[in-house]
Amino acid sequence: MDAAEFRRRGKEMVDYVADYLENIEKRQVYPDVEPGYLRSLIPEEAPEEAESYEDVVKDIERVIMPGVTHWHSPYFYAYFPTAHSFPAMLADMLCGAIGCIGFSWAASPACTELETVMLDWLGKMLKLPEDFLAGTEGRGGGVIQGTASEATLIALLAARSKIVKLIQADHPDRSETDIISKLVAYSSDQAHSSVERAGLIGGVRMKKMPTDSKFSVRGAALQKVLEEDRAAGLIPFFFCATLGTTPSCAFDCITELGPICNAEKIWMHIDAAYAGSAFICPEFRPLLNGVEFADSFNFNPHKWLLVNFDCSAMWVKKRSDIIGAFKMEPLYLKHDHQESGNQSHWQIPLGRRFRSLKMWFVFRMYGLKGLQAYIRKHVGLAKEFETLVRADQRFEISADVVLGLVCFRFKGSNELNETLLKRINRARKIHLVPCQLAGKFVLRFAVCARTTESRHVQEAWSHISHLASELDASVTSITRRQGAPNTGP
Amino acid sequence: MDAAEFRRRGKEMVDYVADYLENIEKRQVYPDVEPGYLRSLIPEEAPEEAESYEDVVKDIERVIMPGVTHWHSPYFYAYFPTAHSFPAMLADMLCGAIGCIGFSWAASPACTELETVMLDWLGKMLKLPEDFLAGTEGRGGGVIQGTASEATLIALLAARSKIVKLIQADHPDRSETDIISKLVAYSSDQAHSSVERAGLIGGVRMKKMPTDSKFSVRGAALQKVLEEDRAAGLIPFFFCATLGTTPSCAFDCITELGPICNAEKIWMHIDAAYAGSAFICPEFRPLLNGVEFADSFNFNPHKWLLVNFDCSAMWVKKRSDIIGAFKMEPLYLKHDHQESGNQSHWQIPLGRRFRSLKMWFVFRMYGLKGLQAYIRKHVGLAKEFETLVRADQRFEISADVVLGLVCFRFKGSNELNETLLKRINRARKIHLVPCQLAGKFVLRFAVCARTTESRHVQEAWSHISHLASELDASVTSITRRQGAPNTGP
Repeated sequence: MDAAEFRRRGKEMVDYVADYLENIEKRQVYPDVEPGYLRSLIPEEAPEEAESYEDVVKDIERVIMPGVTHWHSPYFYAYFPTAHSFPAMLADMLCGAIGCIGFSWAASPACTELETVMLDWLGKMLKLPEDFLAGTEGRGGGVIQGTASEATLIALLAARSKIVKLIQADHPDRSETDIISKLVAYSSDQAHSSVERAGLIGGVRMKKMPTDSKFSVRGAALQKVLEEDRAAGLIPFFFCATLGTTPSCAFDCITELGPICNAEKIWMHIDAAYAGSAFICPEFRPLLNGVEFADSFNFNPHKWLLVNFDCSAMWVKKRSDIIGAFKMEPLYLKHDHQESGNQSHWQIPLGRRFRSLKMWFVFRMYGLKGLQAYIRKHVGLAKEFETLVRADQRFEISADVVLGLVCFRFKGSNELNETLLKRINRARKIHLVPCQLAGKFVLRFAVCARTTESRHVQEAWSHISHLASELDASVTSITRRQGAPNTGP
Repeated sequence: MDAAEFRRRGKEMVDYVADYLENIEKRQVYPDVEPGYLRSLIPEEAPEEAESYEDVVKDIERVIMPGVTHWHSPYFYAYFPTAHSFPAMLADMLCGAIGCIGFSWAASPACTELETVMLDWLGKMLKLPEDFLAGTEGRGGGVIQGTASEATLIALLAARSKIVKLIQADHPDRSETDIISKLVAYSSDQAHSSVERAGLIGGVRMKKMPTDSKFSVRGAALQKVLEEDRAAGLIPFFFCATLGTTPSCAFDCITELGPICNAEKIWMHIDAAYAGSAFICPEFRPLLNGVEFADSFNFNPHKWLLVNFDCSAMWVKKRSDIIGAFKMEPLYLKHDHQESGNQSHWQIPLGRRFRSLKMWFVFRMYGLKGLQAYIRKHVGLAKEFETLVRADQRFEISADVVLGLVCFRFKGSNELNETLLKRINRARKIHLVPCQLAGKFVLRFAVCARTTESRHVQEAWSHISHLASELDASVTSITRRQGAPNTGP
């Protein structure tokens, strides 16, 4: 395919993409296929001879679309959102065309520099403390990671490297492996699975802290475990606080936890993967109070800030902490401007795409006000859904609705709720996933798509409510037949 | 921006991309900017109000392009190539539109399944042993990682987890940290910096093995160090072999190393990041002989197989080894088809884009023959450059030219070669980076761009030769004035 054909095919693809997104709600949100569906639809080997573009493109609807879960359908309410916008897609086209690999300043100065400045822009939108910004003189700054999992891992590894150096400075005879064997990291029992995984990869103990009735880790809980662990000869070194947990969007109490971490020389990392985007709104910014105590902070613009995956923004107060843990400089990466920072020392992969272009396009074409309006619209839709749930006596809300997630359940047994969820997902009209809160099986309704409107939320609720009535009727009839008590309250 | 505007702007962007690529050789391959150039060109903060698309797009040439190193210019000969093709860009547009996050089968069945099948297709193109393929019954299979650095790290962590379990099965009293403190991993002294970094992250010793005159690790060298290390009470557990090293594209002798690793129960991982693409050609496939001894194998289609970054293909013989090391399954990721594999258990990030679409488009639109022709063309161009170098008595070839990389130097001191490279890069006509081989400063000429033709290689050589003559003249005149001997041979 030459440039001339690309002009034609690229424009056709633009139309295909626009058609797909304009009509997405007509597609069934969750696919009907069974595992292994795809293999039989395509050959067992790559073709010897080139096929035409027509051959390939006609297989999109035949092979791919039947197996797609449509994350950008307004009937998708599962997990958390993944961001999606037209400006981000345009920027990604440009990113693909430039196709540079930004592993050093010299490998593409624009790629390194725009990223630094975009992270400063975003940090200012969040009103992050000055310490986290790079500016021209700052010791801190931001980097785009692929995912929050990587950010957590990087923070944990930097903290591990820092504590080892600190202890070895006083005790040069203590080996690194001996120190690491005594380290202990902490996170909420509500923290994302990637936090536990970071501990596993880093080869350190990870303790899950109990949470209060709001699913929040409090200072007293941390204080208690620190005392026990120090008494047992362990070395606490890392706390991963979560703002906006995956199960219920709960917030660890960082105003209590931060001062303890600072006093105890424990690296505090904040994972606000989903909730972070909301902090650009003054009314939600108080949820970030306490960030001044953190060593590193991360959230995913690729979740809720209209910047397509992958774009996970991470800031540190001291770049040197993180660079010191990973820097390697072989000759083939040395260049005249070696002192100019590049973010590949701050991440697991060495290569990196020109991801900051997406941020630049989105921030400019929405403006701060446009982004704030987007967040507020989603929160408003979640509140609307909450109101519908609360108005139905058969249901209960399982956690405070702070942002765009509503955790709710049918009053009654876990089995009943599991059955309800199965019926919801098998009906294929909307798509939800569950969580477990204090031993209860709970349904999560996350406002996800950019195109979700009030009518979709109303429709989703009346669908859920209808399925619940059906379930209720069948349970009542079974229990009546069996003469057993109703599983309801 | 709504879908209607996206249709218009997207088509304009397609034309911009086509224009950029059609005229790329008119742009200066390496930028003139100094570090910090970009910050002063754009505002200090994101705009409050939305800007128009015109405002954004006109800044591409004003702000971005002056700082871009044009990796796809036919005058770019630095590092190794990064792949780029029109079919891959079209597939990426589709990937962005679908915008699913494939962290489980249910999160997007097509994303999980196409990846498995594409890795089988690619494995068959490489004639990988059956063990590495997933098929419908296989225990092995492939996954797309972001980069080779991640693949190496994942392999090392899986090997670490496996050896710990193995030792603990016999000695349940030995702690994980005690075992890890005795582990030792190995790689070539020519291995990529990311291999050393993987050891650092995994918290294990990493020993660099000496190489022979061809910069290749041989079996005897490994055997010797293993004996020493076992005698010292260490536990060898991981060997990262490189096929196509970054400095000189050298090949570790895996037919010797593999049997030793197997006999000693050491996980052999093969990093063929650059060279791997060439193995689709029967004439280069012998370079991969010995892969049958490996536990895991990785190369980057995003380097040399026309699939845009990021697409690093990794295969393992036993999926269970790698999944066992990382699997976490919180309730919000459970679904009806839980037993269906998904690749997010095989990687550091949890989220993943629909990257296999790029492979599918590229493999079909080039066909195996088209891909082979592409590899052969690049190797031919490297051979052409080698011939030019060899014909000039002032120069020498520093390592065997096996694929698309030529390592060469001006006969004389390292300083002279450093000066020559500086002059080449400061002239901005072509772009090269150096390496160090056996204490010598060497210039690397890597055939990189898809559009590089014989005339560009000829032009590059006559430019280098001209700068060398200038340098020679100035050195001769200085040494004559100083009465000192010439730095030449």
